[in-house]
Amino acid sequence: MRDILVIGSLAYDTVKTPSGKAERALGGSGNYFSIAASFFSPVKVVGVVGTDYLESDRQILKSRGVDLNGMQTDQGLTFHWEGSYDGDMNEAKTLKTDLNVFAAFDPKIPQAYRTSQFVFLANIDPVLQLQVLSQIESPMFVGMDSMNYWISSKKQDLLNVIKKVDIVFMNDAELKQLTGDTNVITAIKKIPSLGPKYAVIKRGEFGSMLYSAENGFYISPALPIEKVVDPTGAGDSFAGGFFGWLSKHTKANKTSDISWAELKSAVRAGTVMSSQTIQDFSIKSLQKVDSDLYQKLENEHGAISGIR
Amino acid sequence: MRDILVIGSLAYDTVKTPSGKAERALGGSGNYFSIAASFFSPVKVVGVVGTDYLESDRQILKSRGVDLNGMQTDQGLTFHWEGSYDGDMNEAKTLKTDLNVFAAFDPKIPQAYRTSQFVFLANIDPVLQLQVLSQIESPMFVGMDSMNYWISSKKQDLLNVIKKVDIVFMNDAELKQLTGDTNVITAIKKIPSLGPKYAVIKRGEFGSMLYSAENGFYISPALPIEKVVDPTGAGDSFAGGFFGWLSKHTKANKTSDISWAELKSAVRAGTVMSSQTIQDFSIKSLQKVDSDLYQKLENEHGAISGIR
Repeated sequence: MRDILVIGSLAYDTVKTPSGKAERALGGSGNYFSIAASFFSPVKVVGVVGTDYLESDRQILKSRGVDLNGMQTDQGLTFHWEGSYDGDMNEAKTLKTDLNVFAAFDPKIPQAYRTSQFVFLANIDPVLQLQVLSQIESPMFVGMDSMNYWISSKKQDLLNVIKKVDIVFMNDAELKQLTGDTNVITAIKKIPSLGPKYAVIKRGEFGSMLYSAENGFYISPALPIEKVVDPTGAGDSFAGGFFGWLSKHTKANKTSDISWAELKSAVRAGTVMSSQTIQDFSIKSLQKVDSDLYQKLENEHGAISGIR
Repeated sequence: MRDILVIGSLAYDTVKTPSGKAERALGGSGNYFSIAASFFSPVKVVGVVGTDYLESDRQILKSRGVDLNGMQTDQGLTFHWEGSYDGDMNEAKTLKTDLNVFAAFDPKIPQAYRTSQFVFLANIDPVLQLQVLSQIESPMFVGMDSMNYWISSKKQDLLNVIKKVDIVFMNDAELKQLTGDTNVITAIKKIPSLGPKYAVIKRGEFGSMLYSAENGFYISPALPIEKVVDPTGAGDSFAGGFFGWLSKHTKANKTSDISWAELKSAVRAGTVMSSQTIQDFSIKSLQKVDSDLYQKLENEHGAISGIR
């Protein structure tokens, strides 16, 4: 079990879905990732909040043993995202993005964080992703997420980060946009030539796909969810479950020693966490994952995928 | 190994896809199903063709041991469908449907067909589906396909057929249209109350989903295909592989004795066949499935789904 460092957004989200609306509820990739990963392993979070950030929201991470020494509080308001989902709920429509304190965020990495072995660069400006990564001494396993906005506006910076990571997490549209391919399979096969040994494609209700040139594909179904309340944070919860499981269970001391079986189990852990997140607004469902629920969902995943 | 009876269309298709165009190429649910199923088991086909239907096209089924005594030739032209695919290739756009001899099709079931144990009612007018089914003495396992057109125009007739079958094969849109649900999971759970014990949802590149109230879900990935040339016939090839595998391998003498493990294997066989069909126009790729290729694809499916 090794510590995980995550840099990501710590946010208040206003989200409207067919199930209702959440106003200024706790969100942001850093929060979703940390809560999911901390089920397995200790997490250190790097991020920025405003003076409006509630102590009770800090406590949510603290109570899960998350190290908040890298969470800085700047003058101003916390990052606020407003979005809505309708139809098939597979994609968010962004209504408003108030960067607030995030606009001038200059991540400072506490000395104690610099030896982190597992590092996740959640979806933020690739320039910041690279700035953080360059301050980590010799990380063993680095993952990243991104979005269409950065692929359009800062592609070269993004490629510079991609070159340095071991695994990327993307959705179908991002993968196609990045590679220029219309077929997901040919697109994902291009990822290793950009640097990362592994790629995970997140496909919402259709599950996910893990790829490496050496091992080929592992395709995992999503758990069958009857009531998707709010898909926000599903991808970050997936990455958190993935990183959490891996840092807890792998015996490897370098990326090339991580086994395919371990990576497949990490995908299953990510699937459990993301399937849980979407069943309520904000982090409410994700927080409820305890050992019993995790085991139940992991068994269910094994059954639906034909493994057991 | 028991015979399978299929009623479906025997057609010439004109199809345009980003890979090119096929003019008046062999198609129709009856042909795709028969070729896929005949890899495993003897097939009897009920359908109608026109006087333009080529002897060489009859020979394709005959050479695979398919019984054509139920294939009638009427005065006029063979059913002709014209369609195109673009973008994500998951849905066809119909450009023209010339029913031709299909318009007045009055299916006659040869006496020797009436004791068939496995029956598949491919996508045709539900009135015809019911007419055929009522002529089969005591089928053990009956499946059906349909489409949006019949769900809109002949819903009650369709429900009358659905009530009498053991398994339905649909896609996401058809399932949602039929049940009025927007969530696929709640929708599929309504199928048993309409009659069928099992439902298979075909999801194109995202694989398929098998459901029963007793056993829950089995979710199978599609094989990763880099060049989808023509998706036409994928669903019928899936059903053919499913029925073929099941009629060959199950020891059951009644539907309730078919095991969940057998049904999951049948889904895998369907997946192999549909993944093969889409790699060329018409039936060209599907015809190429021999024991070696089947085993290779089945192994690949086991690997990507984490079973082996």
